[in-house]
Amino acid sequence: MTGVALFNRAKRPAYIPSLELVPQVLAGSRLAVARMISRAEGNYAEASEALAEIYKHTGKAHIIGITGVPGAGKSTLVASLIKALSANGHKVGVVAVDPSSPFSGGAILGDRVRMNEVAEANQAFVRSMATRGHLGGLAPSTLQAVDILDAAGYSPIIIETVGVGQDEVEIVSAAHTVVVLSPPGLGDDIQAIKAGILEIADLHVVSKADKPEAAATVAAIKGMLALGKTLQSSNKFSSAWDAPVLAVSSVSGERMESLVATVDAHWKHLRDSGEATERERNNCRTRIFNMARHLFQQQFDEGPKNLEQQLQAVMKRESDPRTAANVLLGWDKER
Amino acid sequence: MTGVALFNRAKRPAYIPSLELVPQVLAGSRLAVARMISRAEGNYAEASEALAEIYKHTGKAHIIGITGVPGAGKSTLVASLIKALSANGHKVGVVAVDPSSPFSGGAILGDRVRMNEVAEANQAFVRSMATRGHLGGLAPSTLQAVDILDAAGYSPIIIETVGVGQDEVEIVSAAHTVVVLSPPGLGDDIQAIKAGILEIADLHVVSKADKPEAAATVAAIKGMLALGKTLQSSNKFSSAWDAPVLAVSSVSGERMESLVATVDAHWKHLRDSGEATERERNNCRTRIFNMARHLFQQQFDEGPKNLEQQLQAVMKRESDPRTAANVLLGWDKER
Repeated sequence: MTGVALFNRAKRPAYIPSLELVPQVLAGSRLAVARMISRAEGNYAEASEALAEIYKHTGKAHIIGITGVPGAGKSTLVASLIKALSANGHKVGVVAVDPSSPFSGGAILGDRVRMNEVAEANQAFVRSMATRGHLGGLAPSTLQAVDILDAAGYSPIIIETVGVGQDEVEIVSAAHTVVVLSPPGLGDDIQAIKAGILEIADLHVVSKADKPEAAATVAAIKGMLALGKTLQSSNKFSSAWDAPVLAVSSVSGERMESLVATVDAHWKHLRDSGEATERERNNCRTRIFNMARHLFQQQFDEGPKNLEQQLQAVMKRESDPRTAANVLLGWDKER
Repeated sequence: MTGVALFNRAKRPAYIPSLELVPQVLAGSRLAVARMISRAEGNYAEASEALAEIYKHTGKAHIIGITGVPGAGKSTLVASLIKALSANGHKVGVVAVDPSSPFSGGAILGDRVRMNEVAEANQAFVRSMATRGHLGGLAPSTLQAVDILDAAGYSPIIIETVGVGQDEVEIVSAAHTVVVLSPPGLGDDIQAIKAGILEIADLHVVSKADKPEAAATVAAIKGMLALGKTLQSSNKFSSAWDAPVLAVSSVSGERMESLVATVDAHWKHLRDSGEATERERNNCRTRIFNMARHLFQQQFDEGPKNLEQQLQAVMKRESDPRTAANVLLGWDKER
């Protein structure tokens, strides 16, 4: 141990147990919220009791998922939404799932910086999460960050996911209202809207409404939605809700109030129709299953403590793989 | 219940409990072997105790994995191997992992029929398994079929996998000796050998040696192996074994004895060098992990019996997703 390390350690504030942070989170302390999210992200064992406690104070927030292909302008849209929602008196929370790639480039970073400045000016809370689920699904910590913001009184809470891989489809299991953002110019290459994306959107937004191609893109998406409606008349969720298609300009702020009103209308629709409960039920089940899968994977990544013993037993033919697996899962005893 | 159903039932022989089949399997009864494999394939709960017992009598057989792109001629090679190995006094077992696709076509079926005829004539035991692992890895029942043949005294046991998806790489976790079969003409399109395939092969075989392109393909594979050796000098397994490249003709039987001798030499090498134990250890660990994953998935596919209760508790915020997941996993109590 060096003198410098000792010196640094002396300067570091004492660690506050997570359970002690809970009342501060519930009281809306930004510092406590930030700390809890860090502990969720770091998967601190010490924090799990506090996160369980926090969960019991959730369920109040309107959770909005925003997804779309890279370059669609998600961070810029989120910045505009923060401004518009805050102006309406909302205490906005944002969890941005970061691709955590060093190649994501300056443009995204620049947008993120601008988003953070807007958040700062509007008392909104923005957090980028680098963690992603290994096994499909949003990382448990992303949903825990939403819980923390929810318990701290933030609403709506926006989850911004990068439109790569499965995240864009998984967002439907985490949000009440899913906004799919598309860049203009999509009319030329309609394949850019991937299969599955149409179904998950409660609301389509075309960015950069100031560009001349935006109108064609709106028309193209409307056409696809009409076709989809003809092909499959029984959409699980959207039976009583036709996903609107809006063009907005985050730069000029054009139609941003209309977007906010539509998002609000969808949230009202969900609650009035009872769909909110149905959705929450599905989301809850998905979340429990993903958490179980996560706990399972974690257990096996760490190497179960009795692995060597079981491995030896199987190699010596004193046991067999199924019995050993059950022992490692703790499923060998009657449950 | 109709009269016909009753009539059919009356004609069906009484179900023999799996545990009672075990001594017959160990005595080498073909009928008992066939029945046990069906029960493993059907994932009969009743059979798990018997399969655990059978496992304790395994570890004697030399397990050979044969993989390669569709159309490489795997079934034809297996038929030739059955003939050559049987002539050497071996009691050969074959587990063929079937793509279970209705589109696999008549050619494959024809090859399989011919393989079965050869097996019949040589007292070999051949079984096609339609089951495949959902989660990567060979299906547990495929490995259980190998166990059953091993316990019944078959050796070598050949696992033939279709060279699609992950099977071809997973085979390395199930076999002692991995044979990668390539069709001739590969010299023209060297990309046809996928990355990863080179590393898993203990032995490369080029089929249809009678075709003029076969020599070029042998040369191309040898070139790639030499390049691979230069690039990464520390291959985990093959440090003391340079994978030979053989061209064989299953039709004329050309060089089939040479192939059998090389396979035997590899098995001898593994045992003499101690690599066999190392490999078995790795395979055993992989198998236990895959089995645990399989048991986990099965549990959640069926829907854990206390799911609804946990779901309600989480929705009412009386519990949280992590606690619920731990309850569903049976991990809520101290282990």
